[in-house]
Amino acid sequence: MSKKLTKRSEDYSKWYNELVVKADLAENSAVRGCMVIKPYGYAIWEKMQKALDEMFKETGHENAYFPLLVPKSLFEAEEKNAEGFAKECAVVTHYRLKNNPEKEGKLMVDPHAKLEEELVIRPTSEAIIWNTYKGWIQSYRDLPLLINQWANVMRWEMRTRLFLRTAEFLWQEGHTAHATKAEAVTEATKMQEVYADFAENFMAMPVVKGVKTESERFAGALDTYTIEALMQDGKALQAGTSHFLGQNFAEAFDVKFANKEGKQEHVWATSWGVSTRLIGGLIMTHSDDHGLVLPPKLAPIQVVIVPIYRGQEQLEVISEKAREIVKELKSKGISVKFDNRDTHKPGWKFAEYELKGVPLRIAMGPRDLENGTLELARRDTLEKNSVPQEGISDRIATLLEEIQENLFVKAKNYRDEHITSVDTFDAFKEALDTKGGFVLAHWDGTEETEDRIKEITKATIRCIALDAENEEGVCVFSGKPSSKRVLFAKAY
Amino acid sequence: MSKKLTKRSEDYSKWYNELVVKADLAENSAVRGCMVIKPYGYAIWEKMQKALDEMFKETGHENAYFPLLVPKSLFEAEEKNAEGFAKECAVVTHYRLKNNPEKEGKLMVDPHAKLEEELVIRPTSEAIIWNTYKGWIQSYRDLPLLINQWANVMRWEMRTRLFLRTAEFLWQEGHTAHATKAEAVTEATKMQEVYADFAENFMAMPVVKGVKTESERFAGALDTYTIEALMQDGKALQAGTSHFLGQNFAEAFDVKFANKEGKQEHVWATSWGVSTRLIGGLIMTHSDDHGLVLPPKLAPIQVVIVPIYRGQEQLEVISEKAREIVKELKSKGISVKFDNRDTHKPGWKFAEYELKGVPLRIAMGPRDLENGTLELARRDTLEKNSVPQEGISDRIATLLEEIQENLFVKAKNYRDEHITSVDTFDAFKEALDTKGGFVLAHWDGTEETEDRIKEITKATIRCIALDAENEEGVCVFSGKPSSKRVLFAKAY
Repeated sequence: MSKKLTKRSEDYSKWYNELVVKADLAENSAVRGCMVIKPYGYAIWEKMQKALDEMFKETGHENAYFPLLVPKSLFEAEEKNAEGFAKECAVVTHYRLKNNPEKEGKLMVDPHAKLEEELVIRPTSEAIIWNTYKGWIQSYRDLPLLINQWANVMRWEMRTRLFLRTAEFLWQEGHTAHATKAEAVTEATKMQEVYADFAENFMAMPVVKGVKTESERFAGALDTYTIEALMQDGKALQAGTSHFLGQNFAEAFDVKFANKEGKQEHVWATSWGVSTRLIGGLIMTHSDDHGLVLPPKLAPIQVVIVPIYRGQEQLEVISEKAREIVKELKSKGISVKFDNRDTHKPGWKFAEYELKGVPLRIAMGPRDLENGTLELARRDTLEKNSVPQEGISDRIATLLEEIQENLFVKAKNYRDEHITSVDTFDAFKEALDTKGGFVLAHWDGTEETEDRIKEITKATIRCIALDAENEEGVCVFSGKPSSKRVLFAKAY
Repeated sequence: MSKKLTKRSEDYSKWYNELVVKADLAENSAVRGCMVIKPYGYAIWEKMQKALDEMFKETGHENAYFPLLVPKSLFEAEEKNAEGFAKECAVVTHYRLKNNPEKEGKLMVDPHAKLEEELVIRPTSEAIIWNTYKGWIQSYRDLPLLINQWANVMRWEMRTRLFLRTAEFLWQEGHTAHATKAEAVTEATKMQEVYADFAENFMAMPVVKGVKTESERFAGALDTYTIEALMQDGKALQAGTSHFLGQNFAEAFDVKFANKEGKQEHVWATSWGVSTRLIGGLIMTHSDDHGLVLPPKLAPIQVVIVPIYRGQEQLEVISEKAREIVKELKSKGISVKFDNRDTHKPGWKFAEYELKGVPLRIAMGPRDLENGTLELARRDTLEKNSVPQEGISDRIATLLEEIQENLFVKAKNYRDEHITSVDTFDAFKEALDTKGGFVLAHWDGTEETEDRIKEITKATIRCIALDAENEEGVCVFSGKPSSKRVLFAKAY
């Protein structure tokens, strides 16, 4: 297979699909809409999980595990949530296969093993979890209940794309229960903050923190807090959401607690999640026509060393030095790979690690050994420099930080240049068509206007930014009064 | 809810079920046979995962993720495997719910959303994975392929028990591909060794390493290597298995590679797994009538500090000292909890942490502060000692190692005392009935004898131990010649 990628400027979507496969991140499977996450892609997910899991634990959350399957009667208990997900539910109806008497060696569903009640594969776990919380919560002493789950979920999407939208995906879902509304709202915004922190400081992906309009809310939520990122093609990506669920699930599942005065009250709830979709966002924030560009904090391999040699003797001398460097880097907690395979040429390896987004590449040949130097190449800028071997691990530690910072600044500059403030609908459409990105415009607050704008331009309201300033104006579409600009964009 | 447990001597099975629930490890869910793993139980699983994952990576394996659902046509490709699991398969037949026109607010399966081909929830992933490997393996250079997956699986068991046998469970499944038979066999036994190492050195649970008889093999395997542990009630527990799959899956899915001579050959395979069942084994190896006993290496909390005080002033003085100790212990990597809740009395807390198996408990009162002492209680022996505060963190580090070792030695002594060598079928039955445990006996090597012994005694051949010595003898049941003793037991 050729490793040559389609250019982003030619066909961004094709570039993305090719890159995911060629960089060995993921591929489509035999099951419609479900992906195989390959080891290199999964290693990125593991790095994300580790960082997020630590952040969740630092903010007082514990992990648990709830069943994959949800009885239909529980699933339908919270009506809005059920309505929102019903069309995407994979349904288990039978619990046994048997030999097909008409086709030797083939199996068929055993009609005698039909379930009395159908089971839905969780599209999200509010229903099964709140049904469980009913048994866990009696008194204010049992609150807050701060639980997270790492799990697979299934949403039968019709159009799927690797990482961005798949029928099955991996995610974490936090589900918390609180004694007061204020506490639950604080929790929901705190987790939005955690997500923003992770996106910016680990993924080097700048995000806007905001709140969703009613029509874009999670089914069953009273408010959905979101972090919205901007991809290189000018489309937005919803990267994480945190929901204030009010008392909807507590009412649906009758979860009450005795407050300090002994009075029974319904519990207040939040839920929040990020998924393997983040890997799609990571790719589309930083990568280029040569392949992946990974921020050092999430790169499975941070440094690769490629020896340049003729014959076994040269390789042995170089290897000795390389192993010293590997040891030094590892002692600093830097992940490093020494690729001494003799099955591939250095040029092939250079292209391979470029494609895979390894932040720093060291090349070492016989002349380097003589001069006490090595060649150091940065993946983000593609700069190459000959540098002394002496003090290399300190230099690399500093450079990795610099690359992490540089990627964020670059992405933030791009994002900031692609927020256009407009005051007329013509300017709105022009900004979307010519420049893409976020469009900041006044909106009259009605779902009708929101829908019309979407019909005409395909842009949706990504969020009302938390830091949006009050500003009197008129809706770009209806001309009605508005007190704040909201953030529109076409989105993934 | 009373925290008082049924005694093991009264009803071992009841004791187990109560303990799992009262110690907050897990509970049954609204879905038949599926459990909720509560935070404390999940924290043990996380510790197990971390240790195992490191061992897998040290032995060259990488993690990946494959789809939850398996198309029926792939599932049935390897016939023995399909036959072995067909009766336990949860089957997805539809992909959408819709509003029930006859019952407002209720949902029903949408008959128009029937899948063309049914999808099975993975009971194990050989089928979907080998179908994927077909695209990954072309040449000997692609081998070995050493991949592990952490996932949920579903087996529709009729009789379930928390952790030990549940319809859905969490596990890891390794799936490797090799160029030669010898390499694959080496891999299978290496992973059996890794499991044994984990069981003995982390779980403090001694195991016998052996190989299964044909009738007890994994469906589709040519050999199943197992680790077998002995529970306190004299029943055996299969704790982990590693399978040499020969070329069965490579043939079923047509996975071939070009060897160094350019000739096409089928690939050789292994698979291996351990699951949340291990938590059941952990409980039944060490725990007692007071509750859980956890080996320090897997205890979510290794040390708990309980203050004994009257009034806020005393609490503050004790807290200051406690926080010093917490800091000191944490700096040594020891997990410690300071329980200064004023909602519960010290006696209640003592019972609670005993129930939850925290290895060491520190109690500190005003007199301890005066004397520079504290009370240190060991969960394994229930010993209490007044010891100086000075040097406490070193003392605790040493004690934790001692407890880990003590638990293993105790379990090993019990196990060794419960291996009975017998030469007649009467002695065989008597050993099983009066003493329980493993029975070492000659067997004629036929499935017929194995089945008859099982019918009469409920004991199965757990394994043929890898270190079983050659010894001429006659089968205890048939009197036919035998060259080795095999290990029988009643089992979970």
